[in-house]
Amino acid sequence: MKEKAVLAFSGGLDTSYCIKYLTYEKNLEVHSVFANTGSFSEQDVAELKEQAEQLGVASHTNLDITEDYYNNAIRYLIYGNVLRNHTYPLSVSSERAFQAKAVAECAKKWGAHYLAHGSTGAGNDQVRFDLIFQTIAPDIQIIAPIRDQKVSREEEIQYLKKHGYSSHWEQNPYSINKGLWGTSIGGKETLTSNQPLPEEAYPGKVKHNEDTQLTLEFKNGEPHKLNGEEYESPVDIIQELNKIGSEYAVGRGIHVGDTILGIKGRVGFEAPAPMIIINAHQTLEKHTLTKWQLYWKDQLAEWYGMLFHEGQYTAPVMRNIETFLADTQKRVTGKVFIRLKPNAIDIEGIEADHDLMRSDFADYGEMNQAWSGEDVKGFTKILSNYIKINNFA
Amino acid sequence: MKEKAVLAFSGGLDTSYCIKYLTYEKNLEVHSVFANTGSFSEQDVAELKEQAEQLGVASHTNLDITEDYYNNAIRYLIYGNVLRNHTYPLSVSSERAFQAKAVAECAKKWGAHYLAHGSTGAGNDQVRFDLIFQTIAPDIQIIAPIRDQKVSREEEIQYLKKHGYSSHWEQNPYSINKGLWGTSIGGKETLTSNQPLPEEAYPGKVKHNEDTQLTLEFKNGEPHKLNGEEYESPVDIIQELNKIGSEYAVGRGIHVGDTILGIKGRVGFEAPAPMIIINAHQTLEKHTLTKWQLYWKDQLAEWYGMLFHEGQYTAPVMRNIETFLADTQKRVTGKVFIRLKPNAIDIEGIEADHDLMRSDFADYGEMNQAWSGEDVKGFTKILSNYIKINNFA
Amino acid sequence: MKEKAVLAFSGGLDTSYCIKYLTYEKNLEVHSVFANTGSFSEQDVAELKEQAEQLGVASHTNLDITEDYYNNAIRYLIYGNVLRNHTYPLSVSSERAFQAKAVAECAKKWGAHYLAHGSTGAGNDQVRFDLIFQTIAPDIQIIAPIRDQKVSREEEIQYLKKHGYSSHWEQNPYSINKGLWGTSIGGKETLTSNQPLPEEAYPGKVKHNEDTQLTLEFKNGEPHKLNGEEYESPVDIIQELNKIGSEYAVGRGIHVGDTILGIKGRVGFEAPAPMIIINAHQTLEKHTLTKWQLYWKDQLAEWYGMLFHEGQYTAPVMRNIETFLADTQKRVTGKVFIRLKPNAIDIEGIEADHDLMRSDFADYGEMNQAWSGEDVKGFTKILSNYIKINNFA
Amino acid sequence: MKEKAVLAFSGGLDTSYCIKYLTYEKNLEVHSVFANTGSFSEQDVAELKEQAEQLGVASHTNLDITEDYYNNAIRYLIYGNVLRNHTYPLSVSSERAFQAKAVAECAKKWGAHYLAHGSTGAGNDQVRFDLIFQTIAPDIQIIAPIRDQKVSREEEIQYLKKHGYSSHWEQNPYSINKGLWGTSIGGKETLTSNQPLPEEAYPGKVKHNEDTQLTLEFKNGEPHKLNGEEYESPVDIIQELNKIGSEYAVGRGIHVGDTILGIKGRVGFEAPAPMIIINAHQTLEKHTLTKWQLYWKDQLAEWYGMLFHEGQYTAPVMRNIETFLADTQKRVTGKVFIRLKPNAIDIEGIEADHDLMRSDFADYGEMNQAWSGEDVKGFTKILSNYIKINNFA
Repeated sequence: MKEKAVLAFSGGLDTSYCIKYLTYEKNLEVHSVFANTGSFSEQDVAELKEQAEQLGVASHTNLDITEDYYNNAIRYLIYGNVLRNHTYPLSVSSERAFQAKAVAECAKKWGAHYLAHGSTGAGNDQVRFDLIFQTIAPDIQIIAPIRDQKVSREEEIQYLKKHGYSSHWEQNPYSINKGLWGTSIGGKETLTSNQPLPEEAYPGKVKHNEDTQLTLEFKNGEPHKLNGEEYESPVDIIQELNKIGSEYAVGRGIHVGDTILGIKGRVGFEAPAPMIIINAHQTLEKHTLTKWQLYWKDQLAEWYGMLFHEGQYTAPVMRNIETFLADTQKRVTGKVFIRLKPNAIDIEGIEADHDLMRSDFADYGEMNQAWSGEDVKGFTKILSNYIKINNFA
Repeated sequence: MKEKAVLAFSGGLDTSYCIKYLTYEKNLEVHSVFANTGSFSEQDVAELKEQAEQLGVASHTNLDITEDYYNNAIRYLIYGNVLRNHTYPLSVSSERAFQAKAVAECAKKWGAHYLAHGSTGAGNDQVRFDLIFQTIAPDIQIIAPIRDQKVSREEEIQYLKKHGYSSHWEQNPYSINKGLWGTSIGGKETLTSNQPLPEEAYPGKVKHNEDTQLTLEFKNGEPHKLNGEEYESPVDIIQELNKIGSEYAVGRGIHVGDTILGIKGRVGFEAPAPMIIINAHQTLEKHTLTKWQLYWKDQLAEWYGMLFHEGQYTAPVMRNIETFLADTQKRVTGKVFIRLKPNAIDIEGIEADHDLMRSDFADYGEMNQAWSGEDVKGFTKILSNYIKINNFA
Repeated sequence: MKEKAVLAFSGGLDTSYCIKYLTYEKNLEVHSVFANTGSFSEQDVAELKEQAEQLGVASHTNLDITEDYYNNAIRYLIYGNVLRNHTYPLSVSSERAFQAKAVAECAKKWGAHYLAHGSTGAGNDQVRFDLIFQTIAPDIQIIAPIRDQKVSREEEIQYLKKHGYSSHWEQNPYSINKGLWGTSIGGKETLTSNQPLPEEAYPGKVKHNEDTQLTLEFKNGEPHKLNGEEYESPVDIIQELNKIGSEYAVGRGIHVGDTILGIKGRVGFEAPAPMIIINAHQTLEKHTLTKWQLYWKDQLAEWYGMLFHEGQYTAPVMRNIETFLADTQKRVTGKVFIRLKPNAIDIEGIEADHDLMRSDFADYGEMNQAWSGEDVKGFTKILSNYIKINNFA
Repeated sequence: MKEKAVLAFSGGLDTSYCIKYLTYEKNLEVHSVFANTGSFSEQDVAELKEQAEQLGVASHTNLDITEDYYNNAIRYLIYGNVLRNHTYPLSVSSERAFQAKAVAECAKKWGAHYLAHGSTGAGNDQVRFDLIFQTIAPDIQIIAPIRDQKVSREEEIQYLKKHGYSSHWEQNPYSINKGLWGTSIGGKETLTSNQPLPEEAYPGKVKHNEDTQLTLEFKNGEPHKLNGEEYESPVDIIQELNKIGSEYAVGRGIHVGDTILGIKGRVGFEAPAPMIIINAHQTLEKHTLTKWQLYWKDQLAEWYGMLFHEGQYTAPVMRNIETFLADTQKRVTGKVFIRLKPNAIDIEGIEADHDLMRSDFADYGEMNQAWSGEDVKGFTKILSNYIKINNFA
């Protein structure tokens, strides 16, 4: 009897090749799995299943992990206003970790002998798959044929043809990953340091000359209503904001940063919903949280984003940080007023029950009754003590 | 003989009132000082002197501290990419500290008995003046008449009239502070939480439909050339970028944050040069510094910005942080390509001798010769050990 | 009708003076309160009540807040292994904050007009009282007669005599504060920088030549059993360890640090139970928590200790940190083997179900089956990439 | 012609085996190098050379890198008061990195083809050698025969015999590494979690019943004089303190921590000089540095110690941290009074020109003239604002 391999299947050339390769070269029974994190339509996943079956899998499974992904990843990325290197909302990194988790759990449940992924040996995704696979299913051996064989694109196409499968493989000069939490775009210019991506490489287009105003409402840190309307799930709000935002070409950027392998990488992205939500959420927090809460949230969220980005989602400290972040959100409830302009997101203001700026206790910018000039003198006298003492010593 | 008071004079209603008040109510010999940090023209400062003399000062001194301000403040704000609360380039805060320092040093040199400033009791500036004054000249007594007396604008005007001075006091609904490192705008809407400043409150205007491209060159972290041209001082580059940027209305924002007094404050700003320079510098650093250098720079710069913002510029730890930041800039040399669009700054790419992405050693995104798939497997195996062990325990 | 003052009463000269002063000079109805945090016996508190009544209070209340103090303060100080400046277990600081809280809550409940404390103007306690009083009962005015009047010890004694109260006021050259979480000792030598406290200033004495061995068992981070015996409350274990430890003169130290007022202070302490428990707990954590959990616990605990020490116990971020710390303790369960020698605490080892060192997965120090030499080579190759790239660039 | 291998030789069984193995199995010309970091006598190194020659090396070189090790490693470990996991002074870790560096530089200079070390596959040392070798000499291939072959002790002895070399290999149940910055002791009990090392496993013994007093003087953070006597180098002071301290059995501990491989490790150590110096230095800093200097020193030093411990000494951020640490030491000058008791180091006090506690400006513990009770009231009023506002909102 053949041994079972569970393959993280995406429908692309690399993972299509993997099916044939694992079947014919490794003599394995291949079970392909696609974990939808919210960016594939029903038709998309149906086509994916069909394709996998044509490629000869023993079974193909489509998982819908969108809510799991939102609840256990995006939610905390919002709480933490997580932008890797001050820029990148972890569009691919967070999604890949959750797909790896879902696939590994299937493999474990099904008693598989192998876990396979189609990543190459140059990027971050291989590390994410490997790390998550190993921590969830340490007894299952990992195969990554593309990485191991350094096979070229052309060779993959020929091999598939030889085994009776041809397809119109996209010749897109860019490698694009469309996800709920943003689309990443790599290729050509991103391999240089000095060139920007051309306008046409981005999925969105400016379609409006006029600004548009949005009201995004948060409840305990989570997107709750958009323009007064309550959606079934925050996921729906994210999808709606991606749609609106892409018509203003907002949320774009180029992420330059350290890969997990230690080399520098550069990738473009367009993430309208993440950038709108994070900007709005962060402004709401500035009104509802105290200085040191903001400070420590930043510290922990930076680390959360880093470990997540680098595939260490399953590390125990991540759960502790999530507890902290969630605990800070009790009062992060209110409306945020947003204006979209072509290429720009403006946060215009907020309304919140627990707005510390509107506290009855003290108002900024007018003569204050809660303390006197004498109090401030005393304050600055004492506060400067340590510097004065230092200067005298 | 009268005792001497040295007053930080700005030409506004409050400090004009202070001259008369200190002269007539306190019976002091008033010496006014204006410390120009680079945003006042020669004519501006000449008019200021004239005004002070009409108000009856014993002497008025105009100091030009622009280079001091750049070398000992802005330079480190650039090295550190300092944005308070992820937003605000410390436009007023850094300037005020340096003005206070210059005025306090005069007072000390001149053997003054009093140091006076015109701040009210509600905001941050009083604390900055008090703290800097006290740490530089601990033996000189501080007077802040506006804060101490809670005098109203109307009363100030009447008092000045009574003492023979009337002027066409601006009735600008906004309190504006124009500085080299940005202009702050407070009033009306900024006293609310939910309203943005209207377009007309900002000094800049979009004057171009077409984008413009800039090349900004850094040498060891400092702005060195703009569009290929070497300027006499980085200060000139800042002034030029403020001019260009204001024609694209870039570098605007609203800063919401904790005042030193513990209440929340909200203020608008327009800071084209700071936002262009910081964005450009930060991108150049992402290419030339390693991950942990970027991480620790951020940590220390956040703290540097916080203490500076809160008037603790003279704290000993600030000098230690400056040493650290300067030491990280040895390789932050290269060109940054910038595109200005209406309301948006795009960093398009960089060119640098020490670009870690273009290192001969390893290139991202293509098949790599410097390590093998086996190496990555070993890497992820070892890296996941601590999580696997935890899951087994 | 007289206005009500609630006074934090300790039985010492200062607070005794306050009773008379508030009664006669301020014409207030004085209600004294003593909040026992676990170091006063039943007889002690009975005597305290008697003394207050002799001094003429309208009422005296003894509160027992020991369990509250343990549950809401000491517990987190243990979770966080909190030692201020790497040395001091917050013996006085944490206790004072909780006493202030208890007294402020009484005053609020009783509708008092004044909250009074007997602190002087030189130390930290005044700030702790002021801060806690203000945040819990912002509408109640604070009186601190000793601070306000700068009255001398001799004047206090005379004033009390004049109002019919004399007592044998201790002439101890040291000011001693005996608390559940340690005893602090100030005076004479601690006012210098170069002299240690003499042996006789410390309450404990070495009474044994032989070592003793203890087994302390933790359950989710809390002391649970001592030498196999379950105690009713962790408080009892603390008291027992204080007793045993003081016979070995362990847990002593001198804390030198920044006061809240910015000056440096020096104080001796003897805190056997805190030092035994923290050392034991920290060792248990080294075995049961991962590297980054230990790292982030330290970061947050350092801040928790600092804010607590400085009287900011009621700050919102403190509650968030407590949530984090508690979340990390789920596996901090096990036995710790301790040896007490004269002047020294040795942690000899631990036993824990979730000991990461004894994980089936991998054992240190012997040839390992979980990875190969090749894996380590790959690991170090990849891990050194960023440095190699830097050296090449 | 044979290819050259440069071997880090220690004289132990493992590296002796490596000489024969590289010569006979790999057919290499073996050049052994020993880098003395200060714990080997002249006779020790002469014997080492003799042994290497008997084993048939093409050449043996003894390097004395003690001063380099002190200046570029220990000095910063002192500045930073570096104790890994609050406990371990990096006795082995820092030494190994410097030995690896010295050996790699030789190999580079001599045009070697191979760099060899004798580490096993279970511990940290292999990673330190690999990382340092790779970053300094990336083109030279690394061989680690013991790791690669998983050869047993008995097999090594037989192999050496077969090749004509027998020796009385120590049968010490403990693996001991004696270094300038401390001696580490592993084996038997350290492989368990619950057993302490027996007294006889430690090199020191309590030889005195009486305490002894020492005066250690620092100059800009470095040990400068001991008991009034200036030594030629701080290295001599370290050696002297190791000698004295070992007669009081001080500086012992058990380090439990995460290895670089992710598993937990446990090792005993005896490091009298490091523990005396660090305790003394840290106390001196508490008197001469401000609160935030101490805080940030701790942050950076923790990271410095972690990266150093884990073999990343050559990372660029390490040089930046060193600059910071050195900059903080300008005033860390003064005498520290130390008392050694059996098993205990007491820091009794300090004397320093820049003692912030003895500043003329303000003295702790007595009524203060530099501020009034009113000032403190103002201070606490303002400082509590953010909490009061939060409670009202």
